Amino acid sequence: MRHGCARPENAYQAHLLRMLRNRGPMSRAELGETMSLSRTKVAMELDRLAQLGLVDTGGLAASRGGRRSAMVSVAADLRFVGVDIGATSVDVAVLDGELQLLDRLSDAISIRQGPEQVLETVLQLVGKLQGNGLAPRVDGVGVGVPGPVSFLEGTSVVPPIMPEWHHFPIRDMLSRELGAPVMVDNDVNILALGEMHAGTARSVEDFLFVKLGTGVGCGIVLRGNLHRGPNGSAGDIGHLQVEDYGPPCACGNVGCLEAFFSGAALERDALQAARSGRSPALADRLAATGSLSAVDVGVAASGGDPVAVAMVRDGARRLGQVLAALVSFINPALVVIGGGVANLGHALLAEVRSVVYRRSLPLATGNLPIVLSELPAEGGVIGGARLISDAVLCTPRSAAP
Amino acid sequence: MRHGCARPENAYQAHLLRMLRNRGPMSRAELGETMSLSRTKVAMELDRLAQLGLVDTGGLAASRGGRRSAMVSVAADLRFVGVDIGATSVDVAVLDGELQLLDRLSDAISIRQGPEQVLETVLQLVGKLQGNGLAPRVDGVGVGVPGPVSFLEGTSVVPPIMPEWHHFPIRDMLSRELGAPVMVDNDVNILALGEMHAGTARSVEDFLFVKLGTGVGCGIVLRGNLHRGPNGSAGDIGHLQVEDYGPPCACGNVGCLEAFFSGAALERDALQAARSGRSPALADRLAATGSLSAVDVGVAASGGDPVAVAMVRDGARRLGQVLAALVSFINPALVVIGGGVANLGHALLAEVRSVVYRRSLPLATGNLPIVLSELPAEGGVIGGARLISDAVLCTPRSAAP
Repeated sequence: MRHGCARPENAYQAHLLRMLRNRGPMSRAELGETMSLSRTKVAMELDRLAQLGLVDTGGLAASRGGRRSAMVSVAADLRFVGVDIGATSVDVAVLDGELQLLDRLSDAISIRQGPEQVLETVLQLVGKLQGNGLAPRVDGVGVGVPGPVSFLEGTSVVPPIMPEWHHFPIRDMLSRELGAPVMVDNDVNILALGEMHAGTARSVEDFLFVKLGTGVGCGIVLRGNLHRGPNGSAGDIGHLQVEDYGPPCACGNVGCLEAFFSGAALERDALQAARSGRSPALADRLAATGSLSAVDVGVAASGGDPVAVAMVRDGARRLGQVLAALVSFINPALVVIGGGVANLGHALLAEVRSVVYRRSLPLATGNLPIVLSELPAEGGVIGGARLISDAVLCTPRSAAP
Repeated sequence: MRHGCARPENAYQAHLLRMLRNRGPMSRAELGETMSLSRTKVAMELDRLAQLGLVDTGGLAASRGGRRSAMVSVAADLRFVGVDIGATSVDVAVLDGELQLLDRLSDAISIRQGPEQVLETVLQLVGKLQGNGLAPRVDGVGVGVPGPVSFLEGTSVVPPIMPEWHHFPIRDMLSRELGAPVMVDNDVNILALGEMHAGTARSVEDFLFVKLGTGVGCGIVLRGNLHRGPNGSAGDIGHLQVEDYGPPCACGNVGCLEAFFSGAALERDALQAARSGRSPALADRLAATGSLSAVDVGVAASGGDPVAVAMVRDGARRLGQVLAALVSFINPALVVIGGGVANLGHALLAEVRSVVYRRSLPLATGNLPIVLSELPAEGGVIGGARLISDAVLCTPRSAAP
């Protein structure tokens, strides 16, 4: 039976829960072997976790010859909610204690509607999912928002595309309404956590996740933990200055990476190329649909349109220059590129790789894979659930939540 | 009584030892309060640490009114050796369990003599220090070398200025000869650890330490731990490409930061400015001493020589550009600039600050101090001792050394 926010009491219990969450059911024998703990110690900690309602110890493992070992799993009724708030839509999902997706709902929003209205939509979606009977209770909620976040305060801070959200108490409001612990992070960090839990980055401890969307950002995972920095602004690479001069950026500066290469920059350049007649392919597309996006640039580039090809190559080269420095500096084991603009076709990845491998230190890039994300559309809600489950399952009660 | 490599048995013991090392003697009451542990638990863990010979529990604290609480300290006979190998000299010091310097010896070497000869000098210096009676036993040795290190293997790897050292088993050789655990890291990381233990960075968890010497490197400390990266090359910022073209670098590329700004680059540019007659101040200095170094550039710049001033400003601006990106990326709480070239006078720091504060994200630089290192010349040996004492005192026996 759980009361309020059940959490493990010590580091062994947190470790046991993390293993069961990430690997699924294990026998007591396996748990003891993997953690180098005595059978008595494992039994003692599991008993306590069962009392806290965090594990089920009832099942029996397939026999390995001798007496069948009892199987242990995270409690079957644990439920986490992942919320992925985008600029134009919101995804809400219910996941179990192993972060398996049980159900998911989406709705169209505009982030400009402001926090009250958007969070009301979130609450309605959570209510519907609970109505389905899948989440009789909620053990924690992890939320991603499309802008800078004060992680400690659970609020957005000076978010450029959602000024109405500045300092709005997202965490406290949702926590009060849902009666569960809530954590809020920016969309890039949430996707990096999804990548760590269910993507290519599953097996590495140190990696960079680059999100190419309307803007550009980077999630930094070191020793298996997100690095946010004391102000929470770590990874905000979209406004690194790559040239002394260049197109004006939404932030007010010139020469920022995302003013050269991002969904917004590609859209701006595509419209210009279409209207000036330099790109017949983009002009046709604009005439047909009335608008242009990064996807259209990708399609035109794949079709061989030279202007579109150059746009992808130039942008990827600038991204590669930034990544080369970051790779030399932080020496990650993997770089994953995701987000809506990541699918510009082979030219993007080829150019980024070419610049990074040529410009970074040989020692830093020796075995470094640079890959596109293979995370499904659920990456955001999985990352949200991972965030809050780390706090609820993997942080002993004496430590900060 | 200690036998072989005594190490704490669990995380509480490691935490207790770390506090006693960093803060000095504490009463049992203080220890319990600071760690939120019961008096019984503290007593139990301290008894075990005393049995392991890692703490002394004999002293009595000054009375706070009631019964005098017993004072606890790290064992008075703990001894660590710090070794700082430079290109032209080696420093060896003996430190106690609180990393207080007890004695220190230096000798001139040439790193080009190769590992056997240089390490023989190190062993002789350690022998002399032991002969002084200050180090009847050695609990651990931390070594810094002026080049890339494979931290896991305890060897140098492709070190540019010391090719003879490539893959030489520094750690294993010294460990065998001295009968104590040894750890090897590069000079920049060792200085960053010194900065963390005894410098301006004492009170922060996340900081960058930039060493401006013959080359340029950066130590990255996150959450109180050095970040080395999977290949140990993290922080190697000297070869970040800051221009497409530029002076050739010792690494074989062009446009590297340290080809523009480093002790070696300043020496090269100073000689050129002196010989071409562009800088009368540097020409006079060259005529007087027959050579020029970064120190001469600093003196000439402080004296108002326009060419020397421009050299410092231009170099500092390039360093600032690199730091601006790294600060936005990793969001540290402090940047410390050290190394022999750091004392170029006020112009260096002013220019670096100007570029970083202008180019970095406001959120990342809000409260960011950028300061010169105030670490004394012993910074390297203190950092070496800190490195090995972290492993010996602060890593529980079940974890990797």
